[in-house]
Amino acid sequence: MPSYTPPLRDMQFVLHELLGAVDQLKAIPRYADVDAETMDAVLEEAGKFAAGVLHPINLSGDAEGCTLDKTHHTVTAPKGFKEAYQQYVEGGWPALSCDPQYGGQGQPMVMNTCVFEMLNSANQAWTMYTGLAHGAYAALHAHGSDMQKKLYLPKLVSGEWTGTMCLTEPHCGTDLGLLRTKAEPQADGTYKITGSKIFISAGEHDFAPNIVHLVLARLPDAPKGSKGISLFIVPKFKLKADGSPGERNPIVCTGIEHKMGIHGNATCQLSLDGAEGTLVGEPNKGLMAMFVMMNGARLGVGNQSLGLTEVAYQNALAYAKDRLQMRSLSGPKAKDKPADPIIVHPDVRKMLLTAKAYAEGGRALATWCALLLDQAEHHPDQKTRQDADDMVALLTPIVKAFLTDNGFTATNTCMQVFGGHGYIHETGAEQFVRDARINMIYEGTNTVQALDLLGRKVLLNQGATLKKVGAQIEALIRAEGVNESMAEFINPLAGLADKFTKFTTEIGFKGMTNPDEVGAAATDFLRVAGHLVFGYLFARMASVALKQIAAGNADPFYAAKLQTARFYFARLFPETATLMITARAGAANLLDTEAALA
Amino acid sequence: MPSYTPPLRDMQFVLHELLGAVDQLKAIPRYADVDAETMDAVLEEAGKFAAGVLHPINLSGDAEGCTLDKTHHTVTAPKGFKEAYQQYVEGGWPALSCDPQYGGQGQPMVMNTCVFEMLNSANQAWTMYTGLAHGAYAALHAHGSDMQKKLYLPKLVSGEWTGTMCLTEPHCGTDLGLLRTKAEPQADGTYKITGSKIFISAGEHDFAPNIVHLVLARLPDAPKGSKGISLFIVPKFKLKADGSPGERNPIVCTGIEHKMGIHGNATCQLSLDGAEGTLVGEPNKGLMAMFVMMNGARLGVGNQSLGLTEVAYQNALAYAKDRLQMRSLSGPKAKDKPADPIIVHPDVRKMLLTAKAYAEGGRALATWCALLLDQAEHHPDQKTRQDADDMVALLTPIVKAFLTDNGFTATNTCMQVFGGHGYIHETGAEQFVRDARINMIYEGTNTVQALDLLGRKVLLNQGATLKKVGAQIEALIRAEGVNESMAEFINPLAGLADKFTKFTTEIGFKGMTNPDEVGAAATDFLRVAGHLVFGYLFARMASVALKQIAAGNADPFYAAKLQTARFYFARLFPETATLMITARAGAANLLDTEAALA
Repeated sequence: MPSYTPPLRDMQFVLHELLGAVDQLKAIPRYADVDAETMDAVLEEAGKFAAGVLHPINLSGDAEGCTLDKTHHTVTAPKGFKEAYQQYVEGGWPALSCDPQYGGQGQPMVMNTCVFEMLNSANQAWTMYTGLAHGAYAALHAHGSDMQKKLYLPKLVSGEWTGTMCLTEPHCGTDLGLLRTKAEPQADGTYKITGSKIFISAGEHDFAPNIVHLVLARLPDAPKGSKGISLFIVPKFKLKADGSPGERNPIVCTGIEHKMGIHGNATCQLSLDGAEGTLVGEPNKGLMAMFVMMNGARLGVGNQSLGLTEVAYQNALAYAKDRLQMRSLSGPKAKDKPADPIIVHPDVRKMLLTAKAYAEGGRALATWCALLLDQAEHHPDQKTRQDADDMVALLTPIVKAFLTDNGFTATNTCMQVFGGHGYIHETGAEQFVRDARINMIYEGTNTVQALDLLGRKVLLNQGATLKKVGAQIEALIRAEGVNESMAEFINPLAGLADKFTKFTTEIGFKGMTNPDEVGAAATDFLRVAGHLVFGYLFARMASVALKQIAAGNADPFYAAKLQTARFYFARLFPETATLMITARAGAANLLDTEAALA
Repeated sequence: MPSYTPPLRDMQFVLHELLGAVDQLKAIPRYADVDAETMDAVLEEAGKFAAGVLHPINLSGDAEGCTLDKTHHTVTAPKGFKEAYQQYVEGGWPALSCDPQYGGQGQPMVMNTCVFEMLNSANQAWTMYTGLAHGAYAALHAHGSDMQKKLYLPKLVSGEWTGTMCLTEPHCGTDLGLLRTKAEPQADGTYKITGSKIFISAGEHDFAPNIVHLVLARLPDAPKGSKGISLFIVPKFKLKADGSPGERNPIVCTGIEHKMGIHGNATCQLSLDGAEGTLVGEPNKGLMAMFVMMNGARLGVGNQSLGLTEVAYQNALAYAKDRLQMRSLSGPKAKDKPADPIIVHPDVRKMLLTAKAYAEGGRALATWCALLLDQAEHHPDQKTRQDADDMVALLTPIVKAFLTDNGFTATNTCMQVFGGHGYIHETGAEQFVRDARINMIYEGTNTVQALDLLGRKVLLNQGATLKKVGAQIEALIRAEGVNESMAEFINPLAGLADKFTKFTTEIGFKGMTNPDEVGAAATDFLRVAGHLVFGYLFARMASVALKQIAAGNADPFYAAKLQTARFYFARLFPETATLMITARAGAANLLDTEAALA
């Protein structure tokens, strides 16, 4: 059975020592009262819930999966999921970072992000139920009418109800412009919605008395394509006059998918047969409204893989210390035992450190992004808000794609540490791989993220946003470039930053004559950008650690951080050498392939 | 539902145009009668069986899995598996490359390898049943007594019985020196064998009246460690005087594993409780005898991933042409349709071509290796035999590890092409990934392969074997270096060959003072070696294609081959840029990590 220990110490390091989160938050009036002790205490409590309640039902939830009663269109989640959700609601967790006006606790997003990392580590399939509810909250909070907010937000904030995003249809996922679900206006101002949705995560279950479906559909007079899509609230049970669930709305689950992983989450086919809904925001502007939810969801997906990376690492590390097999190449290390623990082998350590570095780099990035989100939403200074918003926009596709690619790599190397035992369900290692695999696909495939980053976030504004992140990296290089003990980190970072700037200009020019050049370079570009940001954060983390060590701090945490940073720069960061070659390889070797792909 | 078309044209290209297999085989007296038409006809028939019989029960076999009756210790394979096996036996396929003395057809290994690629594409889980039987045949053919051969080989050759390799125990997999199963000599010359084995593929099933278990165990007076292991035949049913199955032997299946993939193959826990066995070969030399089986099995595992790469590619390609989603970045390509097929997108093509290049490179390598095996075993010239044997020894860990790593990458990129639909069981894409995952683990993890390659096959003989392969690469570079149209292939190949030679010397020196340096470099070294061999083979394939095109051959197959080779050198081969950095990064960043891995 796998186990999980919340990485509280590293979270504290990132929040307090790397990012100075408390000071940054205190500059925002609504967070003037935050203090480190309270933050740490909340994370500790969340960690207890994750490790104590959610993780014990993760492996069993995977084995059991969800069950659909086709007659009554009801779905039963795996054993213990409903009870865990009740505890979660009783603990007030859904309200953590929600608006106090609707019953929320008004805590910063950065806390919510740390909490969700732990929930994801413990049980991604379970966490999706609450994650989607939070997404529905965010979309309605941004775009709902006063009446809609009043009716739905308190229930979503308390966690009494959950939510979904109903976008995908059998013939369209990425290309929502093709969607066919129809919304017909009724005399009373509501709409009758008819169509078929698929891949609706948490689309039906047994642990809330109502589900708030946010559904994309087309009005009768809507323009074709993505400019003719509107957003609707379609509750599972229509609301009575007092706001309580009444009559069943004809939006029903007709099937659940048999998936590679996240078995504990019901991935539903939903059939809408004149289901009653109300319009959210303006007609035909549904995609924009949904993007509020989607951007948050993309950061959330990166966070899912961060969580899986951490838990996979912890279990592989424990196994590598315990499993005795062969002797170290440089002579026996555990002479009193029949063989050495496999952690003595350099390649096993490489697999472990890969996961550890990806977890720590990912945590630093996800937490930084969340802090930027808090600034973007609530900082009193307009320029600070704008800068933070721009940087989050740029970093979001990196968090989504880089962290999920890394998470798949990491869960796989951790599974490999287990040898044959990793292929067996009981150790849990292979579940992490299967669960992690979806994260590269949903909420916009990683190819879509790469095109979003290079095409929209970088080239469309001539690199203006990129320069904002670049300025921070350059400032670090200037400040630490004179510090000899930082040379092993700053030199490779500076080298890449220089090449990256030139390459961005180059691809911008090439893309002007042939947009396919952008498509041919985008995924490699995103991974280079990811390493640039990780390199920046690892250099900063190393700097903090070096200062503590120089000051005589004997906490082995700092030595560990330094070793991880060294490993990262020696073994993972050099991936950029290949990426800079392939990113510049041009589109011809992909497009002049009609015969090969015939 | 996935589909499969045997890649007969590419097999013919590799056999006849790339390797000149017929001429090479004709130089071996026992293969003097081979001819291209017969070879092609046999492959065509095998392809029909694979595509028509095995592939239709692949997805259903994965969903159903194997069932253990705990009371009677019987295992039922998925629906259709038994019937397919009967057809396979009736078709005479198990005998294809077996010794005519025992009823075999005496065809070269190179044919068997091509046949098995197709079986693996169609249904890896099913194919393992017959693959292990062939392994047992090979081990007994090499090390069995005349009586053992007479009793067992005809049954294994005909396929009437199947076989297994019983190595792993709960506390030992890689480190067989730790194994505990005991063999006690009996007065009649047999042995009573007692112990527990796990992870025994095809260990129990319902489609043969007997199973020939090859079991590693320890004699009472055996030396400790790997030098005290002996090999035994332990049939599921003891043989009566006439050689037919008699009394049940107490070697029983007590459990089957719940695995990530290859659900159709029963992975058994076997309990031996004084089971009767006979010694194979000399006492305490069992590991050596088993290695005959294991070397063949390692090539076989590479072939499994080759098969999965091919079938994953075919299905992803078909989907990419069919699925309409978004428009090409450079303007609509299918203007009459609501969106373009996703194959217009450069990144989708990259994913497809990655799989295609890995399939074609893998096929060239696996087939070359098999031809070398035929020479190593049966060529009349002693030096030719020795050279071929040395090269196979060197290439075996590359086939096992490089092809299985590539196969995992390829099945994953192909799954990604399907977007969300790839995560769903019905498309079959995710099964290929799950099945491919075990290939990186069993028959020696890929780390073990890397240590075998660098430590034993390269450094132990001061690079002598490596030079034999290197000489072939150098000859190609010399011959084609003057040819301008080959420069795009020869230049990068020559560049890497040069660096590789220097690096091998460097790591040899470092390893002498610290063996952990070998462990720290081995996996990267193996991947570089893999690309060197793939680069060599792709350059040769490009050369064949260029000559045909220059001669006016309009078959689009040659244009396709050239495009694939170009893609390979532009997009996959550059991985070596990073690998040459990380392979030289040294052991310190892995070993000086006590704090990080605390």
